Amino acid sequence: MSYPFLKGHGTENDFVLLPDRDGSVHGELPADRVRALCDRRAGLGADGVLRVIRTAVVEERDVRASRNHREDEDLPEWFMDYRNADGGIAEMCGNGIRVFALHLYDEGLVPADEPVRIGTRSGVKTVTRDGELFSADLGVATILGETKVSVGDRSWPAVHVDLGNPHAVVMVDDLAEAGPLLEEPAYDVRVYPDGVNVEFVVRRGPDHVAMRVHERGSGETRSCGTGACAAAVATAPPGPGRWRVDVPGGTLQVSRDAAGHVFLTGPAVLVARGQTDL
Amino acid sequence: MSYPFLKGHGTENDFVLLPDRDGSVHGELPADRVRALCDRRAGLGADGVLRVIRTAVVEERDVRASRNHREDEDLPEWFMDYRNADGGIAEMCGNGIRVFALHLYDEGLVPADEPVRIGTRSGVKTVTRDGELFSADLGVATILGETKVSVGDRSWPAVHVDLGNPHAVVMVDDLAEAGPLLEEPAYDVRVYPDGVNVEFVVRRGPDHVAMRVHERGSGETRSCGTGACAAAVATAPPGPGRWRVDVPGGTLQVSRDAAGHVFLTGPAVLVARGQTDL
Repeated sequence: MSYPFLKGHGTENDFVLLPDRDGSVHGELPADRVRALCDRRAGLGADGVLRVIRTAVVEERDVRASRNHREDEDLPEWFMDYRNADGGIAEMCGNGIRVFALHLYDEGLVPADEPVRIGTRSGVKTVTRDGELFSADLGVATILGETKVSVGDRSWPAVHVDLGNPHAVVMVDDLAEAGPLLEEPAYDVRVYPDGVNVEFVVRRGPDHVAMRVHERGSGETRSCGTGACAAAVATAPPGPGRWRVDVPGGTLQVSRDAAGHVFLTGPAVLVARGQTDL
Repeated sequence: MSYPFLKGHGTENDFVLLPDRDGSVHGELPADRVRALCDRRAGLGADGVLRVIRTAVVEERDVRASRNHREDEDLPEWFMDYRNADGGIAEMCGNGIRVFALHLYDEGLVPADEPVRIGTRSGVKTVTRDGELFSADLGVATILGETKVSVGDRSWPAVHVDLGNPHAVVMVDDLAEAGPLLEEPAYDVRVYPDGVNVEFVVRRGPDHVAMRVHERGSGETRSCGTGACAAAVATAPPGPGRWRVDVPGGTLQVSRDAAGHVFLTGPAVLVARGQTDL
């Protein structure tokens, strides 16, 4: 079976996009197909897969069931069916949603020059385009307290942040300390029953941090959008603000408005499109 | 500028193929385009690029200049313009030439059911198809003596093997020793003025070895075809024979005939095709 794909990235967090408007191409989208696509040698290679599907097709199962969905809210036309490289279902991807929005604009699937609302398993998100940059409203970031992360023999205190997906933010003096990130970080499974994304963060200046990240299901990646937001809010005082977050794959901007909503701003790139039979 | 590509692999040694029959698409094929294509996050990702180009276009520069070219030999129609992931020009790729041959057969660019002759910077190579498997005649492997390879604080004796490209074969007791392969191995630059591919090899049984490989210009890869041949001939008695070589990405067969020619047999897979503007 041959089907269409696109390849793209946001600050080098990279994705295979699968156009599947009515769900007839991939059905339930089996985990082994996701793994085959994301395999960086035998497949196309990516940190995750973004299926482009009509919300109506997945409505009951995914959108209305999401804990962030408001009953009075109209559902948007398009749903970002995001999967990690290991085939697991994931709620949201802050870098992926910019690439997803770029694809919708490119294909004329949504009106140009208007913000686009996108369904995710973490509720409906709005993305705004400004030239090369895309801003996603990721909703309210919730700081849930202190926890602990270990890698090998080392342990660090961490801030537990929820952004629709779970994060543990660890402050370090030097990102070289994060070398062991390439291994699996250990965490409190009572705090994170579904796993956690771990951000190792250093301060670079006022309103400016840098980080490395280990994403559950994908390992170390060049960038994690919700992770950048978690890093910013965990290391900033409460209230509105604007921060720069350097990731290995580029630079992201994070801001928070008076209502507490966190916005992630960064680039989105599509580099290829074609057909695959993976 | 948008141009066509294919993605494929041989035992998970993976390649971007660039159809460019008359050389008009890519001209000199700039090194920065090769690096952008091979980038595993911002690009398509591959161990190398195989440009599919008519021999006539590159004849004087590459084929007749190759030290293995025989003056009396007819040049084949197609030339495999192979580049490493770092953008450097390389002579030959034992896994790549199978994928290259598969593409020529798939496109009907050469007669089905006949062996295909392919020009390379290491002379003309013949590939024979048998169902899913492709055998490439890589010519005579020359054992040039003993040398030494170091990684970090450790050093090993190595066998210097030439297969159109240079190899150093190191026998180890355990492939876990080859962990530091992920770093750059050090070698005698008088022996290897153009760099070297280093194979770490363990014996698995009679006529059966396993290896890991560090390819110059690409780092550790899942497989190296000429490296598998070097590993087999460096660890076998002289004369005809047939050996199995396990690589991290699969299994290859190496044989040598009475004339001393070494044949590499293995699978070839194309997983995707499309357009890119990298």
